[in-house]
Amino acid sequence: MRATTIHAAGDVRLSEVPDPEISSPTDAIVKVTAGCICGSDLWPYRGENDIDEGSTIGHECVGVVEEVGGEVVSFRPGDFVVVPFCHSDNTCPHCRAGMHSACENQGFTASGQGEYALVHQAEGTMVKTDGQPDEGMIPSLLTLSDVMATGWHAAVAAGVREGGTAVVVGDGAVGLCGVLAASVMGAEQVVVMSRHQPRQDIARQFGATHVVEERGEAGAAAILEITQGVGSDAVLECVGTDAAIQTAFEIARPGSTVGFVGVPHGVELPIRRMFSRNIGLAGGMAPVRAYLPELLKLVVEGRINPGLVFDSTLPLSEVAEGYRAMDERRSVKVLLQP
Amino acid sequence: MRATTIHAAGDVRLSEVPDPEISSPTDAIVKVTAGCICGSDLWPYRGENDIDEGSTIGHECVGVVEEVGGEVVSFRPGDFVVVPFCHSDNTCPHCRAGMHSACENQGFTASGQGEYALVHQAEGTMVKTDGQPDEGMIPSLLTLSDVMATGWHAAVAAGVREGGTAVVVGDGAVGLCGVLAASVMGAEQVVVMSRHQPRQDIARQFGATHVVEERGEAGAAAILEITQGVGSDAVLECVGTDAAIQTAFEIARPGSTVGFVGVPHGVELPIRRMFSRNIGLAGGMAPVRAYLPELLKLVVEGRINPGLVFDSTLPLSEVAEGYRAMDERRSVKVLLQP
Repeated sequence: MRATTIHAAGDVRLSEVPDPEISSPTDAIVKVTAGCICGSDLWPYRGENDIDEGSTIGHECVGVVEEVGGEVVSFRPGDFVVVPFCHSDNTCPHCRAGMHSACENQGFTASGQGEYALVHQAEGTMVKTDGQPDEGMIPSLLTLSDVMATGWHAAVAAGVREGGTAVVVGDGAVGLCGVLAASVMGAEQVVVMSRHQPRQDIARQFGATHVVEERGEAGAAAILEITQGVGSDAVLECVGTDAAIQTAFEIARPGSTVGFVGVPHGVELPIRRMFSRNIGLAGGMAPVRAYLPELLKLVVEGRINPGLVFDSTLPLSEVAEGYRAMDERRSVKVLLQP
Repeated sequence: MRATTIHAAGDVRLSEVPDPEISSPTDAIVKVTAGCICGSDLWPYRGENDIDEGSTIGHECVGVVEEVGGEVVSFRPGDFVVVPFCHSDNTCPHCRAGMHSACENQGFTASGQGEYALVHQAEGTMVKTDGQPDEGMIPSLLTLSDVMATGWHAAVAAGVREGGTAVVVGDGAVGLCGVLAASVMGAEQVVVMSRHQPRQDIARQFGATHVVEERGEAGAAAILEITQGVGSDAVLECVGTDAAIQTAFEIARPGSTVGFVGVPHGVELPIRRMFSRNIGLAGGMAPVRAYLPELLKLVVEGRINPGLVFDSTLPLSEVAEGYRAMDERRSVKVLLQP
């Protein structure tokens, strides 16, 4: 099959690789209808992470079940499924506690930017739609494999609550989904920190009530003004850099929690401030499967349209251009069609 | 008056210092009935913190109101009061949110190991008992000025819940109070990590169901065995050292929270593990005043007896010996009588 592979910083290619095969009775193979590029894919692309040369890349996809192992009983070929990037058995103690991303039988999608994807623990991982979805719903369904669920996780971890204030640090696709999540959860003031007009526009469509363009100290000052000097009831840190983390702790009110979902890179947590101000940190790799039923319902009922984060759709053959566009911030998020 | 002063690492003395005076209408002066030495006083005593040479030290006390400023209307001379180490107006947005330790008019007790203590924001800070308490209740009341409320805060921050498991890292007075708090909150398994028999005994009186003597990797392995490999539902970090923090994150189950109340010294948070395992961190300087009414009720009704943490009582004149005893871990916590 054709799948995206990474060879060095800045070097992703569409390559011919072996078709995935069922090697365990809990596996399934999904024919990818749509995949996409994640902000976290840019870390290796930018040379910030180690690269296993020639390995496939891409962990987000939706598609149609092609084949299932003997123990996969709830799905059959032809089912349309959302595939959480992190695979889980949905039965271990961590899954039962809703923390599927720490599943004892954890696995990951490895060729979401390809024609087929192997799903480990398919029974506990995949969620299917009622019949085949409309073409127009595909982008939103695709966000449920990672980015929307991750933004949702940031809001849950930050303890967003009805009537409160939520500030989202980061205007990438995850941050925008965090805005949508905070809005759905009933936050009265939803502030996005963004200096990019197109992203601000999406944020407003997702329910942002305020946009703060300033960064660093000026950004923190703007948030304190919005919150009458108190700080935000909830802060969603959706970047993963040290600057974003420091800002998050600057603007969080005492007793609140910073929900973080950006893979941390070079972060030094301000533990003294956390201690003296009682500002907590929660979050991490999103337990997508835990949120999927609820989020799927919201999408199917048309109550949320997170697919708006895709401002570019490319054929899989142009995946390299997709990476370039996201790396240069010309595109928020790129959907890939095999 | 006589009050304890610190002059250098290892050098505390009982000195003659000016009597405190009412300088604001929100002040009160309390004649100290009992004060004590806090584990955090050992940081400067050990030279780990900067020392303001000759300054008074000691932030925990109970006593009798001697004099009040013009705006202090709920207290009069003769009232017996618990004085939270951190003073707060009880009216600002942070206080109204229960985060009194971040009060906009924050102050601290500065001569709790002395004859008199000045209380800023007395109206919002102090809590009085119904009449004069029995002598035997004084130690427990004294713990409410800091140590018991701090252990309680660790349990609250860690999200201890009925029927769950709580592990307390640290067998100092705060850790022991954390054991008591977790037990009162209904944790089914309360584990204390301790290798000191007298402290283990107090922990068991406070409701510990398990004692783990091992440290580091062996300690973590023991906790995992107790929790069937899952990790603890809640972890109370009551030390503040890097070793304690690392242990806490080793033994916390995915999705749980480490509640930390030990002033952090040389701590490097394991952010990668926090992210991949979704283990949060919450806590900090305890909002004593927020918990005081509830804790006072528990003490007065005889439902908790946190005063057991005082295994030594000394006259104020022997304060230097009290510091030595705690520094050398000969004593868990020393009560001082002016």
